[in-house]
Amino acid sequence: MNAKINTKRKRVKFASDNVTGACPEVLDAIIKANDGIAPPYGNDEISDVLQEKFSKIFEKDVIVYPTASGTASNALALSAISPSFGNIYCHKFSHINVDECGAPEFYTGGAKLVPLSGKDGKITVDELNDNIGGFGIVHHTQPSIVSITQATETGEVYTLDQIRNISEIAHKKKLKVHMDGARFANALVSLDVTPAEMTWKSGIDILSFGATKNGCIAAEAIIIFNKELVGNLPFLLKRSGHLLSKMRFVSAQLDGYISNDVWLKNARHANLMAKKLSDGLVSSKQVKLEYPTEANEVFVKLPKKMVEQLITEEYMMSNEEFDGKTVRLVTSWNTKEKEVEEFLKTIFNN
Amino acid sequence: MNAKINTKRKRVKFASDNVTGACPEVLDAIIKANDGIAPPYGNDEISDVLQEKFSKIFEKDVIVYPTASGTASNALALSAISPSFGNIYCHKFSHINVDECGAPEFYTGGAKLVPLSGKDGKITVDELNDNIGGFGIVHHTQPSIVSITQATETGEVYTLDQIRNISEIAHKKKLKVHMDGARFANALVSLDVTPAEMTWKSGIDILSFGATKNGCIAAEAIIIFNKELVGNLPFLLKRSGHLLSKMRFVSAQLDGYISNDVWLKNARHANLMAKKLSDGLVSSKQVKLEYPTEANEVFVKLPKKMVEQLITEEYMMSNEEFDGKTVRLVTSWNTKEKEVEEFLKTIFNN
Amino acid sequence: MNAKINTKRKRVKFASDNVTGACPEVLDAIIKANDGIAPPYGNDEISDVLQEKFSKIFEKDVIVYPTASGTASNALALSAISPSFGNIYCHKFSHINVDECGAPEFYTGGAKLVPLSGKDGKITVDELNDNIGGFGIVHHTQPSIVSITQATETGEVYTLDQIRNISEIAHKKKLKVHMDGARFANALVSLDVTPAEMTWKSGIDILSFGATKNGCIAAEAIIIFNKELVGNLPFLLKRSGHLLSKMRFVSAQLDGYISNDVWLKNARHANLMAKKLSDGLVSSKQVKLEYPTEANEVFVKLPKKMVEQLITEEYMMSNEEFDGKTVRLVTSWNTKEKEVEEFLKTIFNN
Amino acid sequence: MNAKINTKRKRVKFASDNVTGACPEVLDAIIKANDGIAPPYGNDEISDVLQEKFSKIFEKDVIVYPTASGTASNALALSAISPSFGNIYCHKFSHINVDECGAPEFYTGGAKLVPLSGKDGKITVDELNDNIGGFGIVHHTQPSIVSITQATETGEVYTLDQIRNISEIAHKKKLKVHMDGARFANALVSLDVTPAEMTWKSGIDILSFGATKNGCIAAEAIIIFNKELVGNLPFLLKRSGHLLSKMRFVSAQLDGYISNDVWLKNARHANLMAKKLSDGLVSSKQVKLEYPTEANEVFVKLPKKMVEQLITEEYMMSNEEFDGKTVRLVTSWNTKEKEVEEFLKTIFNN
Repeated sequence: MNAKINTKRKRVKFASDNVTGACPEVLDAIIKANDGIAPPYGNDEISDVLQEKFSKIFEKDVIVYPTASGTASNALALSAISPSFGNIYCHKFSHINVDECGAPEFYTGGAKLVPLSGKDGKITVDELNDNIGGFGIVHHTQPSIVSITQATETGEVYTLDQIRNISEIAHKKKLKVHMDGARFANALVSLDVTPAEMTWKSGIDILSFGATKNGCIAAEAIIIFNKELVGNLPFLLKRSGHLLSKMRFVSAQLDGYISNDVWLKNARHANLMAKKLSDGLVSSKQVKLEYPTEANEVFVKLPKKMVEQLITEEYMMSNEEFDGKTVRLVTSWNTKEKEVEEFLKTIFNN
Repeated sequence: MNAKINTKRKRVKFASDNVTGACPEVLDAIIKANDGIAPPYGNDEISDVLQEKFSKIFEKDVIVYPTASGTASNALALSAISPSFGNIYCHKFSHINVDECGAPEFYTGGAKLVPLSGKDGKITVDELNDNIGGFGIVHHTQPSIVSITQATETGEVYTLDQIRNISEIAHKKKLKVHMDGARFANALVSLDVTPAEMTWKSGIDILSFGATKNGCIAAEAIIIFNKELVGNLPFLLKRSGHLLSKMRFVSAQLDGYISNDVWLKNARHANLMAKKLSDGLVSSKQVKLEYPTEANEVFVKLPKKMVEQLITEEYMMSNEEFDGKTVRLVTSWNTKEKEVEEFLKTIFNN
Repeated sequence: MNAKINTKRKRVKFASDNVTGACPEVLDAIIKANDGIAPPYGNDEISDVLQEKFSKIFEKDVIVYPTASGTASNALALSAISPSFGNIYCHKFSHINVDECGAPEFYTGGAKLVPLSGKDGKITVDELNDNIGGFGIVHHTQPSIVSITQATETGEVYTLDQIRNISEIAHKKKLKVHMDGARFANALVSLDVTPAEMTWKSGIDILSFGATKNGCIAAEAIIIFNKELVGNLPFLLKRSGHLLSKMRFVSAQLDGYISNDVWLKNARHANLMAKKLSDGLVSSKQVKLEYPTEANEVFVKLPKKMVEQLITEEYMMSNEEFDGKTVRLVTSWNTKEKEVEEFLKTIFNN
Repeated sequence: MNAKINTKRKRVKFASDNVTGACPEVLDAIIKANDGIAPPYGNDEISDVLQEKFSKIFEKDVIVYPTASGTASNALALSAISPSFGNIYCHKFSHINVDECGAPEFYTGGAKLVPLSGKDGKITVDELNDNIGGFGIVHHTQPSIVSITQATETGEVYTLDQIRNISEIAHKKKLKVHMDGARFANALVSLDVTPAEMTWKSGIDILSFGATKNGCIAAEAIIIFNKELVGNLPFLLKRSGHLLSKMRFVSAQLDGYISNDVWLKNARHANLMAKKLSDGLVSSKQVKLEYPTEANEVFVKLPKKMVEQLITEEYMMSNEEFDGKTVRLVTSWNTKEKEVEEFLKTIFNN
């Protein structure tokens, strides 16, 4: 197979929140962690303390496994709680279904992602209900997990009620609920609720807590709200090469990120910039907002000439996940107000 | 299963080279890479240039895939060139056989590691020759790869002749040769040869190039000396969560590491400290050197009272991989001469 | 998990074509094969000759691997030609997607079945065309195979034109085409074409040739029309426990089945009985035919009272695959005309 | 890979017990099962009754899953009770290690077979004890199963004491014990004990009950002595294509085999013939018995000229599993006394 890792894509402004570096607090934490020696594989003090800090944030004794990639977080979390013949219900646009090259299937040993059409970027209770079935019949893969993405791939944010309704059905039918929180902070500040409310209090069993996009270098965490769900995860982490020897540097990033509300501050800024961008865009009748701007992503349909103008001005203007006409614009923790203004100027060609 | 990731092991002096942080040049490279935005997933400029730099170092157009963990490097490299029913011949002490919780088996979909007894820490040509067989017979797993570790798990270093002899047999029988170079630099400066000589010129097909232990935070590289062996590796990397979105920070570490001979300087220092430690230890008749000290690891048998003395003084004195009586001591890029002296003082109790 | 292998379902008349035994010719072949000794694992003479007989039937040098189960045939065939990160496009009703507990995912190491809605039980060219994409992009699983079922799960039969059109798109995009021929003979006699026409001449690359349902005990065959697609299949067969030691008894069944047009005779009879049953049913205005009866399966919607009547009379009246209201009735090689008449009498309650 | 399924090996007398057909009682059972219709997938009456019959034979409520191949039985049994990162301790000669092309690795998702040198063909308690370790340490694959073969690959039979001692160590360390009983009956009559004594009363947790070699066509059974060990086996069976639709024909074979002591009669005869063959051979000083003849296999070292003589007379004289000089001779349920005599005549060349 001829793979295009190197797409030579150089126009990356507003292309994604993964084009940025680390925020100062996170970089400082790395530099600080570099002093002296420490036990490897997460046996260090920073990693130790992290468990407590996350437990405080989530108002519950949680179990935290830091990882260096979001795909790893998702796939490992799912593989901890799904049998190899499990069904994992997810939105058809979801990252686990579309953008991880089959990582969940690899890690689970062949579980089946059941893609749901949803409404916009969200799973609906009715469709979920219709699709869960076949329990105990050996011919069928077995309903095991519902996975939702918060914020969604369309930049929308599930309300607490929506999360609760999905979890309720899942739990009634003995499924577990996973949240892909690649943009967890952006969703959290959008809803203005507590981390506990958006997760275990609404029925989430296991969370992929994203941090890379919102100010880290390579730091995510699998957060488990129920000790019984840990399963074989420690072995699966090691076995997949995701138990880093100098784990303290991942833990340090997370520490810098969640301390002093850095993560919330970063997310609020990104969301604000997205709002500003979105408002600026829809001020033109030529621009159609595809989904409501609820976090740090803006989806718009633009006239052809606008797209062309953006491309010549070094903006990233392709979006392979959805149809060719919709443009995704992503803001981040360090998007400058001036950059938004420049973008709007460019697009409105003056 | 009740896993002990947290062993609360606090005595880590000389315990391993993974207890250290990054060397200044690597840390600087990270800080520098943090400026501005860059395309994700290795499409950035730092990652691009890395291919050229490694090609220069190895005197050949190599293909480089940076990863964040050595276990990932090894398992991915092996899975790129072994079928699921392949035999991977390795030393019984090898990291892939003993210390990766079955990562090669997981990544290959069930290949069989064939453990060889070897002589000390090295595979012998004769044993290898005796064990490779069963070609084309469907009942048997199929000989596919020979994997050697350089430096070995016993701190010894294969000579060029030894590598060449192993490769020759492997290639004659149509197997590929993998080198686990977790301590590649330490072996290289020990032999005082070129990277090309120690790898493709001696028949190595694919290399796990280690950098974490010798001065990075989390940076390794899969280096392929023959384009035809790339296989599906790009997809396998992504699918296993090892294609980091902000890959430029792994590439930056490698860049800082291989530029200006930083890696060689680091390794020379570590080896020198090991030599000093080894020499100091064997000056006592009570200490028996288990294997020759050829890189940055010292293996000794100590009288019980010495072990006890070390433990009380916060030195790490257990070694689960070998038998209970052998103690492994590892020096690193930043081991201070004074630390070696203190250790010797402690052990000789004066 | 609490699995229901034992569903204690005792009403099996018209329930499926797998409730019958072997036809006399097949049973005779088994008995005949039982004389004397023979090399194991398919090295016997019956297995040898089978390759030639199938090659004659398909007017091409085919490669044949007998197996004892249809699920094995499908999963092995798919795993021979799909990478672990492949996309396998199939109808959402297809056996591989719904009724094999994830066997294709298991055998391929995690490939993704992409379920298409189709029109009735058939894949459409347009939907297929819309769904194949993402080539070479490491984030996406890679389009690899289109799998169609002939006859389909709705009892319909793809025309040669329909097969050709699907194959054409698949091949243009470098995918392979698999046919699940669990009811291959029923489809063949329905179309009244040659085996070659319905397979490789219409673009089929690999076929799961079903025989169990149509008169064998446990005999299927993977038939490959292009030697290059054999891949690692011999090892995969062995490795999955599907290379039976006394393979000659599977080969013997297939021999008895394909010799003297036994398979065609059996299928013609089953189809005729289905037609008779279908015609009898739709003679009532209360009965609605769900799909056209083109092979040996009849799908009807019945009024509730008819269903109840059937259940009391020991007919099998559930169908888990589709919605609760549709009843599937299956005829087989030994369905008696009288049994059809009795069924119609029962249902029309006189 | 170029696989040699077809080895065109035509000299098969005494080559193996899988070169024979079915005994009359088993063939009759198949013919009888062919009457009428029956529920598929093991929901038939024959399969139902089989559970009771096996429970009676084993003096315990056992759970029985019929399969069509021994490799499947072994791999499925192991995968039901080992995690993907498990260690399965076995003899280096064992079928699961040498002759199943990695089936246990495939089915378990990558568990590691730890090959023990043993004494002759048997695992020793001391070596087992030395090798089990690393519990709970995430870097190491985890001790999970001890698998022994009864009769062994060297034709020897574990005594009850030997089985008990192995089980005791395994259970003390929380491992499960699997018995590969491909030649279960031959071992049983050799020891002259009850099935219960040779299995669960001696600590066996799960058994691959072989029947194919000793008089069936393709019939084995996974027998579980403790309901808690069933795990996900029903799904794993289906998912691997080993839940045959017309399962009643496998069950029928097993029924014919275990009813009226057919299996014991067959095994006694095979063992007797092996004894006769063995005695005849060692009457010559030129022949050296390699292992004691305790079941239906004879291992001898022959002078070169004898081997050559045998080859010209159409006897099977190769043995790939051990060294080239040892010849394996296998008798079966239908070996005739006259055939033994002819063999001895041939070899002694008169």
